[in-house]
Amino acid sequence: MAKIYVVGIGPGKKGDMTFRAYDALEKSDVIIGYKTYIDLIKEYFPEKELISSPMKKEVDRCREVVEIAESGKTVSLISSGDAGIYGMAGIMLEIVPESIETEIIPGVTASNAAAATAGAPLMHDFATISLSDLLTDWDLIKKRVDLASQGDFVISLYNPKSKGRTTQIEDAAEIMLKYKSPETPVAIVRNAGREDERVTAATLGTMLEHEIDMLTVIIIGNSKTFMKNGKIITPRGYKY
Amino acid sequence: MAKIYVVGIGPGKKGDMTFRAYDALEKSDVIIGYKTYIDLIKEYFPEKELISSPMKKEVDRCREVVEIAESGKTVSLISSGDAGIYGMAGIMLEIVPESIETEIIPGVTASNAAAATAGAPLMHDFATISLSDLLTDWDLIKKRVDLASQGDFVISLYNPKSKGRTTQIEDAAEIMLKYKSPETPVAIVRNAGREDERVTAATLGTMLEHEIDMLTVIIIGNSKTFMKNGKIITPRGYKY
Repeated sequence: MAKIYVVGIGPGKKGDMTFRAYDALEKSDVIIGYKTYIDLIKEYFPEKELISSPMKKEVDRCREVVEIAESGKTVSLISSGDAGIYGMAGIMLEIVPESIETEIIPGVTASNAAAATAGAPLMHDFATISLSDLLTDWDLIKKRVDLASQGDFVISLYNPKSKGRTTQIEDAAEIMLKYKSPETPVAIVRNAGREDERVTAATLGTMLEHEIDMLTVIIIGNSKTFMKNGKIITPRGYKY
Repeated sequence: MAKIYVVGIGPGKKGDMTFRAYDALEKSDVIIGYKTYIDLIKEYFPEKELISSPMKKEVDRCREVVEIAESGKTVSLISSGDAGIYGMAGIMLEIVPESIETEIIPGVTASNAAAATAGAPLMHDFATISLSDLLTDWDLIKKRVDLASQGDFVISLYNPKSKGRTTQIEDAAEIMLKYKSPETPVAIVRNAGREDERVTAATLGTMLEHEIDMLTVIIIGNSKTFMKNGKIITPRGYKY
């Protein structure tokens, strides 16, 4: 019986993929995803039918997945990180007819991978916010950055900047500085969990001096976050 | 050379563990963790020295890890889910001397596993909040629930209730209802990613009628979250 898997393949390297994710890809006749993600997994599945799909064609990609499943094949739709966090799980479930079995397989999301590389900045309550205003009103995003800062949440920012979208991270930094100290430790992680991963420990006051792009996740600490031995740590509150 | 791994083993089943997590445990002389987590992995590593450590002894556990590493052994300290999310990564990095190499290995955290089971509720900006006031001031937690609700964040609640702590989830529900509709879809997931996983689709208005305990993660949608074919979906905003 045909089946759809929506698979979070983790940040990039096979090591951060789960056994269940790998097994789903192994069981699939077809693997489909955004080209960058197909490139990440193709060496492990050279014998599979792999379909690269362009960015901004997410709805078309899901319709293609449904067609493939309806033809009787098992198909995996992949997202990097966790498919349920700014990935393909939502739109796939919106589009798929109830008659086709669909399983969502969770993965290590980019902010978790970035946090592990930088130390342990996400150890306490945190807010995850995408700065992309392609599908979300910018005023709502700004409001969320403001409220999360007021609440002294650790803040994890996805999609902080792209070629055509450069001012959002500046506005976000300005909003956060209304409530958070400029000394707040910040992890800037590019290509988290991939071959060319790069981690920069900065502060909220200095983070805009560093290179930031679409492949970067930025984690801004709370009022208790500190640096030790080059690692960024948000304490849970244990006494020792 | 001795080394410390701090390993997120995922929610429970081996399938949701990453290859890197498994490899770290395989390479370790000793695996140490809270008893429930040791029980989850012991069948895969019957030949290893496994040390179960009681709850609320997190600092002692980390000191023991340092001692084992100083004796020349490679040791893995395990947390369920992701060690960097309310897990052991923070306190371990606070305590470990710089001379001992320490690697944090990220994992699939409980809310990601819970979300995948329930559908795709975390597809948009979300706030993760622990309702445990053991180490955090209850007024700050309430403030965070309030601000996250004002910001129309999806909210993921860890540690919603324990035997001795029963009123926090009631207070949290009341605060969320100031801003969120009682019809907001809610996923109540007990033992996410474990053998006896149970998912209940409820609403913010009815969620307190369901069983909630320490092993439960609760995900409360945003104003756009909806139910379809039994799945809870937060749309990213794609048009179709």
